[in-house]
Amino acid sequence: MGGLGISFSFGCSSGLSKGFGSRLASLTEAVSEASSWIEAGASSGQSGFGWYDLPEQDTSGIEDAARWLSGYEAIIHAGIGGSALGNLMLHQALLPMYFNERPGVPKFYLADNPDPEKTAAILEMARGRKTALIGVSKSGATAETMSQFLWFRSKLEGIADGDILVITDPSGGVFRAYANAGGCRSLEIPPSVGGRFSVLSACGLVTAGALGADIRAVLEGASEMKNFLRGRKSPEDNPALKLAAVSYLHSIDGRPMTVLMPYSSRLETFAEWFAQLWGESVGKDGVGSTPVRALGAIDQHSQVQLYTEGPDDKLYTIIGLDSRGAEVELPEVTDESLSSLSYLSGRKLGEMLGYEAASTASALVKAGRPVVWIELGRLDPRTLGGLIFFYEYTTAAAGRLLRINPFDQPGVEQGKRYTYGMMGREAYKADAEEANELFKKVKSGALKI
Amino acid sequence: MGGLGISFSFGCSSGLSKGFGSRLASLTEAVSEASSWIEAGASSGQSGFGWYDLPEQDTSGIEDAARWLSGYEAIIHAGIGGSALGNLMLHQALLPMYFNERPGVPKFYLADNPDPEKTAAILEMARGRKTALIGVSKSGATAETMSQFLWFRSKLEGIADGDILVITDPSGGVFRAYANAGGCRSLEIPPSVGGRFSVLSACGLVTAGALGADIRAVLEGASEMKNFLRGRKSPEDNPALKLAAVSYLHSIDGRPMTVLMPYSSRLETFAEWFAQLWGESVGKDGVGSTPVRALGAIDQHSQVQLYTEGPDDKLYTIIGLDSRGAEVELPEVTDESLSSLSYLSGRKLGEMLGYEAASTASALVKAGRPVVWIELGRLDPRTLGGLIFFYEYTTAAAGRLLRINPFDQPGVEQGKRYTYGMMGREAYKADAEEANELFKKVKSGALKI
Repeated sequence: MGGLGISFSFGCSSGLSKGFGSRLASLTEAVSEASSWIEAGASSGQSGFGWYDLPEQDTSGIEDAARWLSGYEAIIHAGIGGSALGNLMLHQALLPMYFNERPGVPKFYLADNPDPEKTAAILEMARGRKTALIGVSKSGATAETMSQFLWFRSKLEGIADGDILVITDPSGGVFRAYANAGGCRSLEIPPSVGGRFSVLSACGLVTAGALGADIRAVLEGASEMKNFLRGRKSPEDNPALKLAAVSYLHSIDGRPMTVLMPYSSRLETFAEWFAQLWGESVGKDGVGSTPVRALGAIDQHSQVQLYTEGPDDKLYTIIGLDSRGAEVELPEVTDESLSSLSYLSGRKLGEMLGYEAASTASALVKAGRPVVWIELGRLDPRTLGGLIFFYEYTTAAAGRLLRINPFDQPGVEQGKRYTYGMMGREAYKADAEEANELFKKVKSGALKI
Repeated sequence: MGGLGISFSFGCSSGLSKGFGSRLASLTEAVSEASSWIEAGASSGQSGFGWYDLPEQDTSGIEDAARWLSGYEAIIHAGIGGSALGNLMLHQALLPMYFNERPGVPKFYLADNPDPEKTAAILEMARGRKTALIGVSKSGATAETMSQFLWFRSKLEGIADGDILVITDPSGGVFRAYANAGGCRSLEIPPSVGGRFSVLSACGLVTAGALGADIRAVLEGASEMKNFLRGRKSPEDNPALKLAAVSYLHSIDGRPMTVLMPYSSRLETFAEWFAQLWGESVGKDGVGSTPVRALGAIDQHSQVQLYTEGPDDKLYTIIGLDSRGAEVELPEVTDESLSSLSYLSGRKLGEMLGYEAASTASALVKAGRPVVWIELGRLDPRTLGGLIFFYEYTTAAAGRLLRINPFDQPGVEQGKRYTYGMMGREAYKADAEEANELFKKVKSGALKI
């Protein structure tokens, strides 16, 4: 195989902090323990650790469903958070960048927000196309997803149970009951896999496969990364543990943000997927760092001013690419009026983008900011799978170092109860009263223009 | 007119901080000075203040160009940062959400990243369509934009000078020279308007108009907001000054992030536009807060865990909508297997999304986090124009309170020089050497998988 072709550099991950190296060294034991904790949790099948075993899952059911879906003219995917972001991430990274305009391939519409205007627009776009409907919710109870699913089911012309797929827990929840009762297709998210760790389950893989991505190669790459990391307990030979430790130290050291800035439009949503994975996993009990997603070169014209000259309160990870799937060679500049652009003649965009990534990293280091550099030899299904697994492992380890449970999300329950209460559900009456009191305060003293 | 129908509430903008009110009061003089500074800078035509006068500009040239553009089958817009984000923001907020699939309206492709794969994909999507090419760069020297512009000009079949529009400075720069020499169409970004403040100039308005947005109404709304804010020098009757002051206090008070979370998919890019405006304007001299863009309800399933239970290090602004341009009414739930969802029967998605916004605000307040609430009666061209002007004013005022110049961006120059040097431009040889040294450090000790 010759490896995944991903390299990790932490040469400037400490910025100019004095004593960073010895503080990192003092974490050696905790880091090793985090690694053992992950491996033990996975091998004993504990709740939350199921992502660790997804690379080796049996994909026959997923591939069947992908083949079936690929026969439609459009796919509407109702899901939110972990049941949506991973799909976008896989599609953007693995399919031709005009994938939603390719003849012979289903159009893909993501119903990821219960916004009536977006929801109605999706129905409009699917009109006249033979459409499959997918509903994804691990719990089978997510109000936003359920609402959109119910509405599309009632509105899509000629839709039958045979055009519907639900992806959910194998035994519990409304979606499972519906599949059991009605005979629609269904696939499983294993009980031990949390929503934000589910991209390598049916949740993420089915639609990617239907649209033409090589999902077996994605899993191979994830498996290769897993095998590399397994048993390596020191930050010095396990880059995921090192990134976890470096992130941990910066987060308790006055740098409450972690920026992920890939230099490829194909990885734009990867940064967003990471933001969910990281934010919801480590942000609890008053700790955790805030993920900030960026995109090179675009954010050089948006956020880099702040990054280099604003407060020194972020850790930066830049992802560079060595080669790209397409190249754009600039023409000879012959117009006299454009002569000052002659330095661009015959140059390649990919080359320029590479220089820009290196320049941003260098400018950040010059400004004393900590930088981690990840370089992909190429971006293909295997490297993407490896990168996904790498970040899942890093996130779990970082949670362990922070002494929190990276696999739960207790903090989203309060808002859910308030919403249920406002929607009039009987059991949540007290929540509604509390929410109304608080919301009155929020809106107090409004100034209207 | 009856006003814009936008209300601003700061009832919970202090979180639980003791003494916040008196600290706010102690800023009274500085805030008043910031307001005078903005008005004086604008009326004396100082560099950077030109955004203040855009609402009253003569739009005849812009409208002519928009009419001309609307006759094409596709528009490729080459621009980056302030020359791109505002366009996406206007389109998403003002056009039907499936605007790029509407028959009879030009397809719009944004070439905003010099990524060869994305650039090549755009050419592929435009193939076979009569295409207009727009190049936007205030300075007329932006390497990324110039590269893409040159490439599309050389690759688009049958393109002639008459199919090209450049939007740039009226007197300086390569684009101006090109327009003067070649006879392509051109429009101006006024010299005193910076890129990130240029959305209400030709830069943002032309393509929005071409695709069917009511750009006069956008400017009317901006003008109405401006007239409301003008002369109001106290945070108590000027919500833009109040938001600036509240943001300033939190930023120096251990809350280095400011989250903008609209509850409408149509405002998703608005948050991104704000992030550029805010980050590049206030992030300098070691101060400034980091903009974090979020989207309701999606980020309830991604970031709200961190927001409510992570560190108390953010100011939150939530934008709610009272009414929406489309409504989605859920069907009666009759399936027995779905009976636990009966609480959704006959409910409206817009209503649910409204409850979710209120619930998130309430949950944040319960957790002691500072929340600003902005409510739009409706989202239309006038309210959007008002909101744009409001945030430009707020950003300028916040910069003044931080004692930095909100209209420059010195921190992006270093990276540019490094890139020029790596590209082989003679004058930047020393920069290339410095960058290569630094980049060697960044990549040192790489671990390859």
